[in-house]
Amino acid sequence: MKTDIQIAQEAQMMPIREVTAGFGITEDDMELYGKYKAKLSDELWNRIKDRPDGKLVLVTAINPTPAGEGKTTISIGLTQALNKIGKKAIVALREPSLGPCFGVKGGAAGGGYSQVVPMEDMNLHFTGDFHAITSANNLLAAMLDNHIQQGNELRIDTRNIVWKRCIDMNDRVLRNVVVGLGAKADGVVREDHFVITVASEIMAILCLCSNIRDLKERLGKIIVAYNMDGEPVTAADLKAVGAMAALLKDAIKPNVIQTLEHTPALVHGGPFANIAHGCNSVKATKMALKLSDIAVTEAGFGADLGAEKFMDIKCRAAGLKPDAVVIVATVKALKYNGGVKKDELAAPNLEAVKKGIVNLEKHIENIQKFGVPIVVTLNSFLTDTEEEYEYIRSFCEERGCEFALSKVWADGGDGGVELANKVVKTLETKKSEYHPLYPLEMALKDKITTIAKEIYGADGVVFQPAANRALKKLTELGFGELPVCMAKNQYSLSDDAKKLGRPENFKITVRDVYVSAGAGFVVVLTGDVMTMPGLPKAPAAFNIDVDDDGHITGLF
Amino acid sequence: MKTDIQIAQEAQMMPIREVTAGFGITEDDMELYGKYKAKLSDELWNRIKDRPDGKLVLVTAINPTPAGEGKTTISIGLTQALNKIGKKAIVALREPSLGPCFGVKGGAAGGGYSQVVPMEDMNLHFTGDFHAITSANNLLAAMLDNHIQQGNELRIDTRNIVWKRCIDMNDRVLRNVVVGLGAKADGVVREDHFVITVASEIMAILCLCSNIRDLKERLGKIIVAYNMDGEPVTAADLKAVGAMAALLKDAIKPNVIQTLEHTPALVHGGPFANIAHGCNSVKATKMALKLSDIAVTEAGFGADLGAEKFMDIKCRAAGLKPDAVVIVATVKALKYNGGVKKDELAAPNLEAVKKGIVNLEKHIENIQKFGVPIVVTLNSFLTDTEEEYEYIRSFCEERGCEFALSKVWADGGDGGVELANKVVKTLETKKSEYHPLYPLEMALKDKITTIAKEIYGADGVVFQPAANRALKKLTELGFGELPVCMAKNQYSLSDDAKKLGRPENFKITVRDVYVSAGAGFVVVLTGDVMTMPGLPKAPAAFNIDVDDDGHITGLF
Repeated sequence: MKTDIQIAQEAQMMPIREVTAGFGITEDDMELYGKYKAKLSDELWNRIKDRPDGKLVLVTAINPTPAGEGKTTISIGLTQALNKIGKKAIVALREPSLGPCFGVKGGAAGGGYSQVVPMEDMNLHFTGDFHAITSANNLLAAMLDNHIQQGNELRIDTRNIVWKRCIDMNDRVLRNVVVGLGAKADGVVREDHFVITVASEIMAILCLCSNIRDLKERLGKIIVAYNMDGEPVTAADLKAVGAMAALLKDAIKPNVIQTLEHTPALVHGGPFANIAHGCNSVKATKMALKLSDIAVTEAGFGADLGAEKFMDIKCRAAGLKPDAVVIVATVKALKYNGGVKKDELAAPNLEAVKKGIVNLEKHIENIQKFGVPIVVTLNSFLTDTEEEYEYIRSFCEERGCEFALSKVWADGGDGGVELANKVVKTLETKKSEYHPLYPLEMALKDKITTIAKEIYGADGVVFQPAANRALKKLTELGFGELPVCMAKNQYSLSDDAKKLGRPENFKITVRDVYVSAGAGFVVVLTGDVMTMPGLPKAPAAFNIDVDDDGHITGLF
Repeated sequence: MKTDIQIAQEAQMMPIREVTAGFGITEDDMELYGKYKAKLSDELWNRIKDRPDGKLVLVTAINPTPAGEGKTTISIGLTQALNKIGKKAIVALREPSLGPCFGVKGGAAGGGYSQVVPMEDMNLHFTGDFHAITSANNLLAAMLDNHIQQGNELRIDTRNIVWKRCIDMNDRVLRNVVVGLGAKADGVVREDHFVITVASEIMAILCLCSNIRDLKERLGKIIVAYNMDGEPVTAADLKAVGAMAALLKDAIKPNVIQTLEHTPALVHGGPFANIAHGCNSVKATKMALKLSDIAVTEAGFGADLGAEKFMDIKCRAAGLKPDAVVIVATVKALKYNGGVKKDELAAPNLEAVKKGIVNLEKHIENIQKFGVPIVVTLNSFLTDTEEEYEYIRSFCEERGCEFALSKVWADGGDGGVELANKVVKTLETKKSEYHPLYPLEMALKDKITTIAKEIYGADGVVFQPAANRALKKLTELGFGELPVCMAKNQYSLSDDAKKLGRPENFKITVRDVYVSAGAGFVVVLTGDVMTMPGLPKAPAAFNIDVDDDGHITGLF
């Protein structure tokens, strides 16, 4: 069987201007980056912004398992299939981070015959968006430390600096560092930390802003530290906003590449799905809605994190209204949720499916709380049985959801026609009554408790002392009406990664909270969150190579 | 008077494909980055590589002074003028670093009516080359620390790690840091240092390599540390070469933009001119030679550093033969060398010119030692007098050099016609007998002494104990036949920045030496070298802004 990178490299790409031509995008609307990548210009947006929107479909999933669910693969395959059945559809996806390419995970461009290409370019540098974010993040850090070095007029408390440097690399030794050592000219000594670029607040800002003006307003609100009186010090106070925005002026323009079936894919932005909201940029999603009948997009991790934030943060901030949600599952993942071990997932096991399907059930109920119609799809594997399929199909249909098998990994768009038809049927026959889960006026504690009870199925929330202090302070500072962004392990509906299926009789423990004032949400930490991955003993980098002609191998 | 950025932004750029069309470059030969930037493909190189070379002209200068000499402005203006008088000429320049844009210096794209555009793009991210170098540098660092974390099979001595992390930012607090703090999973604690990206050995490698194969060979030779037996540990030992090369596969392709007069400018690579060789990439220079009658290029700092390294390192490594050298001076700079203070340089002062011209005299003698014909040019200022011009003209002509006034800042190519004619006359009538200053077989100490005596005018060299030890060790390790790369202050021919003019009766003190084994030279430190600049109290970043339409201001 061919590997993903083989399939991607053997694909005959079309010049991007031909890919976009059918969607009313001319060459003048784009800034080309080579022949197969482009950025969509502000002029294009200005020309199309008053058009009616297409339909918005979110692809989400049950809680992730080691078996892999293939959310991105489904998103791409569904879009290919929609175009096959005569709909103009565009997929909007997140950009991958460089770090994981060299670590364990490899790239993130879908799989099999449902991929976006050129995958090497997308995984390595792409159009430079992440590098621009890294630069803006670190310019702000340099200006912060320089302010302290040059007299510290703002009276920044060096023990209370919250802005971190960032790098788009898995580099564990940078998690905790001391900077400013040496002589007087070498700065003021303090503890510092690096996060991976996707965890930078600037990534979240880039993905939520609507234009340069909004970008600058959000950048200005970033809290970098607190002063000796405990008051926030912002990027605006450091006079860093204009220069940061100049670094980001091209990065905020959506990128367009193509699926293996030569339909446009907007790939733009990629914030973490725990300490941030985990969705591609608002600009890309809005652009896709103006340019297509149906825009397909996805959100990070399972529906408890990804879809909730998509609904409560992204859609609310951007004024978007999702028309349907596709929940992705696999027979293997349901078995895993039913207690089957990783190496026994290939054996038919209807009982385990019946036991594990409660995880899917809970996600169906959750999405229904947002008022949006649902299609459930199974990413099919050769080891699945018809009996298992039929059980799951009935289960979903009994709960008012359409159901479809997907064979998009093996067959591309052809393998997604059933799913595409079910999505179209849902869009045509069921009306979305989308609404967020909670109103913004609700107190922060109540918002957190609402999500914990309604979405996770918890009995309640335990707020640790640090969290209580921080919630009080943030409310006093005027951040009480922001939405909350939950940082929780992705593997379980609870905050304990080992509790699979549909956990009951548990509480969520909130360790701490902080504000991302520029992004516009309050981050709620329910455990340790890794914001700087490390490399494994034999990192993927060992196997990556490029030959004399620039042909890359070992990226997957 | 208009500022440089005003002139640049008011310029009507031509689409880059029209700029290059007259030089036989088709759109298929390029990878476009927007409408006005492109990378030149390997296919183009393969098509033209057997053509005869054009003539190669190096633009260098007297020792830099606070008045500014305008080497880049002359390089661009001369190229514009050569095209005006009917020659096909291409200028090959270095790419600017992001760091100084936000510090004191601003951008680096020439000045007045002799600039390359789009200057904002070139100064901010450009085609991402520097970001690729930063990523490759820091991937190697992460793999090094990960190797130690995962058991340290290579027995790396953590007290003897020589590879540094890098960032393209002026950030003094990163000069000296401690990394790896925290828990067991957060790495091994050690002292570390960040340099600015242009100081990374990878920048020098990118600028000296001829293709991907050569790039990989050089990357593999990089010494990152020494083991417990004092033996070198390389990037190849860490299995980092393939992944680093994959990150650099596009960065090694030359970039093409345009001058204000719509002639092609190859802008590619930008290593430091002290710890590295300070020239744009070999690939760009060779490409320019194949595509033009005359390729104009420059080298960093004054001729004592820039031209010497161009001749002894770049030309030797790449098999290039310079046909003429243009030495740039200004009346003000000669006065400054004659002892006049910075704020009195505007007043006519022939006596000071006569006193300071010894600096120019020494640089003329130095270039003559390489066997290459010389044209001296003065970048003219309104405060200069005819009397001063005539004195300098006679001085140069008496020494066998052509002389021309340049008014390229104010008048673009028109202001460089006299210079262009003198350059063409020199190329047509004088034969270059180029040869390096010293043979590679010469011992490292003798190479250093030769440069100190012949180029700087020193009586001799004092080797401090650390330098003696290092020279012995590097010779034992087999690096004795590499050329040397002198790191010396740029303001004086001596190693004391205060000794202007033509210092005599001094010795050069060598503090330490180390090898850049991938770049292929031994770096000789004659004093403290700043490899990570800091920001001033009011950094240039304060004034940079971008408006709602993406229009940048405050970059200069």
